[in-house]
Parts: sequence; C-alpha cells; structure tokens
Amino acid sequence: MTRVSFQGERGAYSEDAAISFFHDKIQTISCQTFAKVLKNTEDGESDYSILPIENSLEGSVGESNDLLLSTNLNAIGEIYHQIQHCLIGKGQIEDVDTVYSHPQALGQCRQFIEQHSLKAIPSYDTAGSVKIIKELNSKNYASIASNGAAKIYDVPVIQEGIADKTDNYTRFLIFSQKNVDKIKNGKTSVIFSVKHEAGALYQVIKQFHQHKVNLTKIESRPNKNTPWEYNFYVDFEGWQDDGVIKDMLSKIQENTSFLKILGSYPISKLD
Amino acid sequence: MTRVSFQGERGAYSEDAAISFFHDKIQTISCQTFAKVLKNTEDGESDYSILPIENSLEGSVGESNDLLLSTNLNAIGEIYHQIQHCLIGKGQIEDVDTVYSHPQALGQCRQFIEQHSLKAIPSYDTAGSVKIIKELNSKNYASIASNGAAKIYDVPVIQEGIADKTDNYTRFLIFSQKNVDKIKNGKTSVIFSVKHEAGALYQVIKQFHQHKVNLTKIESRPNKNTPWEYNFYVDFEGWQDDGVIKDMLSKIQENTSFLKILGSYPISKLD
Repeated sequence: MTRVSFQGERGAYSEDAAISFFHDKIQTISCQTFAKVLKNTEDGESDYSILPIENSLEGSVGESNDLLLSTNLNAIGEIYHQIQHCLIGKGQIEDVDTVYSHPQALGQCRQFIEQHSLKAIPSYDTAGSVKIIKELNSKNYASIASNGAAKIYDVPVIQEGIADKTDNYTRFLIFSQKNVDKIKNGKTSVIFSVKHEAGALYQVIKQFHQHKVNLTKIESRPNKNTPWEYNFYVDFEGWQDDGVIKDMLSKIQENTSFLKILGSYPISKLD
Repeated sequence: MTRVSFQGERGAYSEDAAISFFHDKIQTISCQTFAKVLKNTEDGESDYSILPIENSLEGSVGESNDLLLSTNLNAIGEIYHQIQHCLIGKGQIEDVDTVYSHPQALGQCRQFIEQHSLKAIPSYDTAGSVKIIKELNSKNYASIASNGAAKIYDVPVIQEGIADKTDNYTRFLIFSQKNVDKIKNGKTSVIFSVKHEAGALYQVIKQFHQHKVNLTKIESRPNKNTPWEYNFYVDFEGWQDDGVIKDMLSKIQENTSFLKILGSYPISKLD
C-alpha cells in the first residue's frame, strides 16, 4: 500500500489533502515536524511526503518553504485543498469561553473569536487541539479544526464555517524520490537567488518573457544565511525537459547564484 | 514631547527601536495591536507610529504589511534594529523547564530550546512573556525577550544571545501624517498589483531597469480578496518627486491594477 507522510495529528488538514490527492486507499503516516515528513521519504520509510506550501489567506508556510532548499526529493504533484474551520467541543456556543487551535487557524477565525469574546490559546496543531479539549472535558473549552478531526476524536461540531473568509485554500506539494511521467499540462517549481548585481532579477524575469513561459507564482523569501538577500520561489507552466524550458533554465542559470529545480508535475486547479 | 505609538508591552523590541530612531526624549505609547498603532497617528493621538516590517531570519511581518495597504499615513523613516534574545527568569539555567515567548522568538531560539529540552509556550508578546513569568514566580519558568524588558520588569537575565543566529535584525518603518524633507540618499516604498495579463510583472520590472533605478526589495504577498493573486511590496532608491522616479511611476501605473506610494525617506544602513 502507498505510504504517505504528513505533518500533524490524525485528522490534520494535511492528511485530508493526502487522501484527496491519492483517491485510492493509502496508508498515512503522522509526523511531528515538516522535516520528518521529508526525511521519511528520503529514507524510504514512506513513498510520498505531503507539505503545505501556501495558504490563500495567510501566505507562505515559512518552515516548509525553507526545507525545500535542502531536500533531494522531487515535487511530483500539487493539490489545492479547501480549509473549512469548525468550532468543535462538548458545549453549546454560549458555554464556550476558551478556544484552542494552531495560531494560523486562530488568525483565520479572528472575527468569530472577537464576536464571541473567546480567549484564544495557541496549540501546535489543529487536530491536536481537538485531542486537548477532549481531555479537558469541559463545556467551556472548544477547538478549531476540520470536520474530519471532530469525527476522528468523536467530539461534536458546534458550528461549521467559522473562518472570516470562506475562500480559504491551502496548496500542498507532494514529493517522491522518483519523477512523475511527463504530461501536457505541466508546471515546474524552481528556487533561485540572483547575483548581487544591478538588474539581475530583471535579467531572470526577462528570460521567462522572451521564452513566452507563463509564471504562475513568484515569491521572495529572505535567505537565512545572508540578511536581506532573497531566494525566489517561482512556478511556471511547462515541463523541465521541454526544449524551450531547458534553454530558458540554462540562460537563467547565468544570472543566478543558486538555481534548484524542485520538479515538474501536473497542474491542479482550484475546486 | 514627540509621541510615538508602538505595538507590545513596555520593553518590546518595537519600543527599543523607536528610542533608537528618535534619539532624543520621546513619549512612547504602548498599543495592543498593529492596527491601533497606526490609528493613533491617523487620529492625531500620536505624532508617529512604528511598525516591524520584516525580520532577517523570519521574513515579513504579515499583519503589518497587510495594514500598509489601507493606511493614509506616510512612511518617513526606517531603522534596522538588532534583536538580541535573552533567557530571562529567576532560576539558573538548570532549573528552567518551561519557556514563554512570542512564537517568532521561540522559533528563532529553536536550537537553544531543544538543547535544554525546554517546553515552549507561545505568548502574545516577548516583553509580555516577562510579565507572565514574573507573576508565575517560579524558578522553573523563564521567558525570551530583550535585555530592556528584563530591566523594566526587574527579572534577571539568565543567559544573553540565545538565538540560533546572531545576525538577527528587524527592519521597522516609521509613519506620520506629514511627509519628511527630501534628502539625497532617499528610498521609496510602494505597493502594487499587476494586471492579470501575461508579462505584466515583466513590464513593471523593466521600467525599473530602463530608468536605472535600484530595487532594494521586492516581495510578493497574497491578495486576501482574490486567492492566488499577489501584491508586490517594492523598495527602491530615489525620492518620489524626483523627475526620473515620477516618470517611472507613471509608466508603471499603466501596467498595474493598483499602485500605492507609501512614502520616501532617508536610507538607513545595517549597524
């Protein structure tokens, strides 16, 4: 059976996304850290790793993006997974005075929390917060997590859809030791940093334009080794071994001090 | 006396940065939220607002960057403030088993926390975490905050410089209702989003190149209203009313769906 490592407790959004991506029966492996998620597949203890990369409301997931710099795994797929936060607990909404969840989920439900004057307590994981309030066993405590997490820990859903905005999607990447077969509608993810010269970024962006390659994402993140230098995370349409893409990447290499191809994979669309 | 609003409890890194920026005696006003920091100056209850914008290790401060989209204040200065995390508490290092601090500070001291097998508890503020452990009054609890916070709350510093990396700077912007007088070595901050057309970002970057304007920062952040669309936060050398800059900005406007000039201000360098 296909083994897929994810971060979080059983019922985490990452596990939901893995199940959506692979459709058929998979064995999911719960990991405490993003680093362990990648290491499992690097060491052959799982076949795939799934990592959240960015969220439509909160932006990049910093830690997983940083890990992409050093992994030797290939990106082989992406999935956009809708995040539907629920208030989960044993009481009625009037009973609840304290809510546990991951800081990002608390942030995404800020208006709901303020409206109901709830005290927010950050915990390491959304699904883990359901586990916590199950143990606390009081009507005054609730957690914010997925419907799936409520089912797994057998705690009732008090209210569904409590996020400030409903257009809340997380994009996950799936990684493997192998590459995936080439298809027509592919996308490639790369990371690069530009040389410390005037116009260096322009020279890179120009290559995409001249090769008529469509950028689907460009994001800069600080280089942790050199303050105020940036790594650029770029996704574009096309497969890494297409002639045009190969030519473009070799030209880009001339203007970058670092260039890493994460992988090529089928484009996924928002639901 | 000049009144400056900052986010956090007394002794917060933001308050330290405000004192460094203004040199002379100022009255600092502690605010709970970044929104309140800006509102005070918008309403004339303070003369200046100081906000953390990015950190050399952690990247952008999401919430303050989002607020820049809607403020009518002008950016009138920047300062790079070195962050020196200290372990603060009443016990010796051997006594401590639990550490309180802001999640970002906990993240920046990850190695130290692991080495000493400490339990990390996120709190809303670094200086606030000193207040918490002072009240808990146990040798087993410590917090991570600045030397200044330790002095203000009169709790001993157990160990200085506990961050994983010492090159830890936060860049702050200072805002006012007025503009600042033009000087030669100026910098301008803008926010824009590009039209949904192929090559739109390239057309904008090209303008900087053709006008020989030096970009000092480019960062993309998701647009919260439209999933997977980005706002670009760009800093460049030059003053907004320089002839070349005015010409460039008017050309850039043709390729952007939104363009906001935050302000021009004297360039500050890393210490």
